[in-house]
Amino acid sequence: MPRVSVREKIVDAAVVEFHRGGYNGCSVETITKAAGVPKGSFYNHFRSKEDLGAAAVARYTEQSQWEGVDPGLPVLDQLRDRFTAQRELIEANGFTRGCLIGNMGEEAADHSLPIRAQVQASLAGWAAEIAVFIRAAQETGEVPAGLDAEQAGRFILDAWEGSILRVKAEKSAAGFDSFFAHVFGILLALS
Amino acid sequence: MPRVSVREKIVDAAVVEFHRGGYNGCSVETITKAAGVPKGSFYNHFRSKEDLGAAAVARYTEQSQWEGVDPGLPVLDQLRDRFTAQRELIEANGFTRGCLIGNMGEEAADHSLPIRAQVQASLAGWAAEIAVFIRAAQETGEVPAGLDAEQAGRFILDAWEGSILRVKAEKSAAGFDSFFAHVFGILLALS
Repeated sequence: MPRVSVREKIVDAAVVEFHRGGYNGCSVETITKAAGVPKGSFYNHFRSKEDLGAAAVARYTEQSQWEGVDPGLPVLDQLRDRFTAQRELIEANGFTRGCLIGNMGEEAADHSLPIRAQVQASLAGWAAEIAVFIRAAQETGEVPAGLDAEQAGRFILDAWEGSILRVKAEKSAAGFDSFFAHVFGILLALS
Repeated sequence: MPRVSVREKIVDAAVVEFHRGGYNGCSVETITKAAGVPKGSFYNHFRSKEDLGAAAVARYTEQSQWEGVDPGLPVLDQLRDRFTAQRELIEANGFTRGCLIGNMGEEAADHSLPIRAQVQASLAGWAAEIAVFIRAAQETGEVPAGLDAEQAGRFILDAWEGSILRVKAEKSAAGFDSFFAHVFGILLALS
């Protein structure tokens, strides 16, 4: 299935290139070159650069998906571990690149309906994953029962995306430290 | 002082154009055209587009600066009012554009040292403004004394920037509602 394979190569290259250079910062040609496919093959697989942008956000979201709750272990520790793993990835990149979902949302949400729709879906899916952990932690009594898990999941994700913006600007982990201190030390903590 | 005036016109136009189109989404020519100045005048005033990017973030930050605490009024209400005013601006724009500091940070922090430095300074200054309100509210007993005001100021700003990303993606105010519910209803609330 050579067609499928070319499309996959282009999407994989787009994830890397958009993450590194930004959406407007790299061209279709940069991406086809990085993918090692003929430039002319692009429009056999995508109607537009926007469509590729949306596909790249979807692929990144799949790649970043968390493992679900392991019922045998303390739940809040697992949620902290998921965020710690993402923190470590960003630290390993020298605080560059950040989160592709957030970057594409900031840069392209106003200008492209397909990208905006995918960013919205990716944020909603991720917030729902966080909410699953919060509800499970409420069942084990690790998190206050009164917290609205869905609402808190969305807020925590927003705070996470904001902290990524700060670590990118500061090239230091301080933004992550505030995130962990406030989310795990106050918001989700039993009083 | 015609030189000063041309420079000012370019910076003002850049704030509008970068906010609307993104940093890589608009050219020096777009900006000089919007400013109504000759394209050739640009390099009399700026070494590069990056320098203009940094100047635009600085100008936007000045324009967005909050009035300080009024000691005669409840402090937490004043902090809520500051965020409400910014929320209303973004709602009035149909949830487009977002925050220029955040946008430029996401898009250009990895690619431009002057822009990154200005984004970092703007975020730090704004977080410090929030911290002033938190400390004042701690003095009036409206906010728990145990909270680290500086750290909380930074976290609240990160959460705000993240909520702006979400309202841009969703074109709805739900992200702001979560922000207010968690920041004023939990984080800053007396238990």
